[in-house]
Amino acid sequence: MADSISLADKLATFEDFWSPRTVTTFNDCDVMVVKVKGEFTWHKHDDTDDFFLVLKGQLDIELRDRTVTLGPGELYVVPKGVEHRPVAREEVHLMLIEPTGTPNTGDKATAAARKLA
Amino acid sequence: MADSISLADKLATFEDFWSPRTVTTFNDCDVMVVKVKGEFTWHKHDDTDDFFLVLKGQLDIELRDRTVTLGPGELYVVPKGVEHRPVAREEVHLMLIEPTGTPNTGDKATAAARKLA
Repeated sequence: MADSISLADKLATFEDFWSPRTVTTFNDCDVMVVKVKGEFTWHKHDDTDDFFLVLKGQLDIELRDRTVTLGPGELYVVPKGVEHRPVAREEVHLMLIEPTGTPNTGDKATAAARKLA
Repeated sequence: MADSISLADKLATFEDFWSPRTVTTFNDCDVMVVKVKGEFTWHKHDDTDDFFLVLKGQLDIELRDRTVTLGPGELYVVPKGVEHRPVAREEVHLMLIEPTGTPNTGDKATAAARKLA
C-alpha cells in the first residue's frame, strides 16, 4: 500500500457508480471511495454504523423520518440498524468507512463485490 | 448530535492547537477534527491504527525510517505499534479517527483531554 493516499487520485482510476474501492484499512475497517449517481436501495446494517463523507456533489441520505443532505466536507454516520437510502441527483463522490466484509446493501445476497483502488 | 456535520464549521468553533474535538462517533471510534502547528511528540498506539486525513495545509508524519507528507484530500493510516511524530510547519487542519478513549500521545499520563465540538 502506498504511503500517502490521495482520495482524488483514487477516484480518478474508475468511472462506475455504486462500486466502492478500498484505498486503505483502519483497524478492521475498509476506508473506501465511491462514485454514486441515482438512487440506491433501502437497507440497514445490523452490526455496524455507516460512515459517509461527501467529497464532491450533494448527497441525500433518506431516513424513514427525514432526509440528511450532505455537501462537500460534510459527513453523517448512519447508526447501526437504521434504514437508509442514499440518493444522488448528480454525480457524487464519497469516502466511506465500514468494517471489512460489510455488504453494501446490508445483505450479502445482493451486495456488490468490494474492489481495490 | 446534529444530523449533517460540517468539518469546516466544527473547525471554526475553536483556535487551540493539538486539542482534538469529537464531532461524531462511528462504532467505538471518535471522529475528530483538530488544528495543529509545530511538532508533536514521538509516540505510538499499541492497540490501534491512527487515521489522518488532511483538510487544510501540509502535514509531515515522521516515521523512524521515512516521512509521509500529506496535503488536502490526502490520508494516511499509521499502523498500530508504529512510532510516529506529526509535524506541521504551518497551521494544518485534520480529521482523525481513533477508538474512543485512545490517549493522543499513546500514554494516558501525558494525553490531552478529549473535547466535544
